Amino acid sequence: MAKVVIVGAGVMGSAFSFPLTDNGHEVHLVGSPLDTSIIEALQAREPHLGLGVPLPTAVSLHRYEGLEQVVPNADLIVLGVNSAGVAWAAQQLSETVSAPTPVVMLTKGLAVVDGAVCILPDLLLSALPESLGTTEVLAVVGPCIASELAVRRQTNVVLAGRNLEIVESTLQILQTAYYHVLPSADLRGAEVCAALKNLYALVIGTARGILECNRMPNGASTHNLSSAMFAQALSEIAYLVEFMGGEQASVYGLPGAGDLYVTCQAGRNGRMGRLLGMGFSYRDARIEHMPNITVEGAELLLVLGPVLETLMSEQQIDKDRLPLLQTAISMVCYDVAADIAWERLFKIPGV
Amino acid sequence: MAKVVIVGAGVMGSAFSFPLTDNGHEVHLVGSPLDTSIIEALQAREPHLGLGVPLPTAVSLHRYEGLEQVVPNADLIVLGVNSAGVAWAAQQLSETVSAPTPVVMLTKGLAVVDGAVCILPDLLLSALPESLGTTEVLAVVGPCIASELAVRRQTNVVLAGRNLEIVESTLQILQTAYYHVLPSADLRGAEVCAALKNLYALVIGTARGILECNRMPNGASTHNLSSAMFAQALSEIAYLVEFMGGEQASVYGLPGAGDLYVTCQAGRNGRMGRLLGMGFSYRDARIEHMPNITVEGAELLLVLGPVLETLMSEQQIDKDRLPLLQTAISMVCYDVAADIAWERLFKIPGV
Repeated sequence: MAKVVIVGAGVMGSAFSFPLTDNGHEVHLVGSPLDTSIIEALQAREPHLGLGVPLPTAVSLHRYEGLEQVVPNADLIVLGVNSAGVAWAAQQLSETVSAPTPVVMLTKGLAVVDGAVCILPDLLLSALPESLGTTEVLAVVGPCIASELAVRRQTNVVLAGRNLEIVESTLQILQTAYYHVLPSADLRGAEVCAALKNLYALVIGTARGILECNRMPNGASTHNLSSAMFAQALSEIAYLVEFMGGEQASVYGLPGAGDLYVTCQAGRNGRMGRLLGMGFSYRDARIEHMPNITVEGAELLLVLGPVLETLMSEQQIDKDRLPLLQTAISMVCYDVAADIAWERLFKIPGV
Repeated sequence: MAKVVIVGAGVMGSAFSFPLTDNGHEVHLVGSPLDTSIIEALQAREPHLGLGVPLPTAVSLHRYEGLEQVVPNADLIVLGVNSAGVAWAAQQLSETVSAPTPVVMLTKGLAVVDGAVCILPDLLLSALPESLGTTEVLAVVGPCIASELAVRRQTNVVLAGRNLEIVESTLQILQTAYYHVLPSADLRGAEVCAALKNLYALVIGTARGILECNRMPNGASTHNLSSAMFAQALSEIAYLVEFMGGEQASVYGLPGAGDLYVTCQAGRNGRMGRLLGMGFSYRDARIEHMPNITVEGAELLLVLGPVLETLMSEQQIDKDRLPLLQTAISMVCYDVAADIAWERLFKIPGV
């Protein structure tokens, strides 16, 4: 039995308590400063606000102030904060962790550090004190909707980390008869896939809006448009993963194709994409229809857009390989109307 | 302007008349013996029975008896019959074509000839007389729902053929501002993708039925299950395409990922998969719920299943790479209840 501390009581951090308690581990769920109302509801044995179900009774619940009590002698730390919370989490872990402890990140995103794109495990590592320098940071990626995990649906994900021995031992803690965890040493490729899928799900979501807006016949079925963009998105992700030093196998497995698929079926990125496809500017769509809602793909574009534009203008990456990315940057960073360059898709031989 | 003869007045053959007439070509649509009622309705200027819209008035309509009148001096023949009609079409072309004429196949499937798996363009070529031995057979593959093409939706497909010069010249005949046709020399890989996507869409469709049947909470959303199977399906298609001598680029582009995506969004294969996931045997599902309906993925399994089983038992292909294929064969060829081997997905390193 392991002692596992989950930091962040959002949907994914909380859902993670199901396989962990089913495996008989000692599980502590610690809210972030934003999660206090969630923790209080859970302490009152109410259903989780985002998941719609109560958590297993074996889970110990803590407000963020309780972190320092439970982190010492944890065998595993699971980070379920949102991408903006990584700096806070790093600070907290710096103050509370006393010995190198593996960290599994559920948080998805990419950061820009000194003008370069950086995966979140590296951002976390760089923020931890040198005394914890051998801490291993792993990431769970792949198609997993938290509310489905919380009802123990069959789910296949990848646990990626640079040290395969630690990946394998951590995997044993997580894996259940419904939560299938596959090992991968391609932390970089997996994380790039996990972040980019949100951005591309937003672009693919424009298909629905384009058709609704144009009142085209045959209902609003968008399959030819969205399928062409899905395949193009995979090829752009493959190109960017290669540029970032990741492996192509991640792109075509659960982290890339699997997670892009799940993200295109439902969610906020697709909702925003639909609005952009209908002709709303990003600014208007956000203000009028999705205020106070985090659209991860759009947030990522606002962070990455300028860096990617620089890389394209310096020809470090080939913009002709990335027509959907260019459209996404135009829409979100410059409030330009959606305009999919259909004739530019797949124009590069061999892709 | 080219003279183009489309053989087969089903939804895809008929939809193909839109880009061709928009490009100003002389277009003849010839029904197969099964299409006589469709042709008669079109001649009465009624909407196409399957597409729901009338065809362009510039299309010349013919019952199958008219084939011999229009085929001579055609610049291009488009074959839109179903896979069972390829032998009939080969016979007709043998009797009517007098000089080598490029043939574009819209028909999808795989055949078994002398115990070996064979792509349909090769089946057609082998059935044509030697006097037409230099005939080039090409194939259109990729995500294209016929009824969407017939309302001129943006559509991206691949035209594959062994002779890239003929591919490029034929592509010029087909391409419009809404119908984007990309060239590929990987006829074999493209055709294997196009056939297998039906089979895998059937397996992925079981996810919906599994959840409906188990009355699991949180509605019937099936995204974790179907997304894991989508990614696994891509890796199995990649393995089989490699075995068949095709290119991996086809798998991860429009012919593979794009077409699998579109096929999973709607259609008969998914409908049959749902029934199998609910616990119906294939036999009962067919008799009770989908009589007289061709489910292409199931038809393909009935043809290919025995050959693939032989290849697996002889270890020419590795069954551990193909857990979903094995499930599909069990369900359709042996009426075994759906049982997805979740723990066996992605168990091969590097896939």
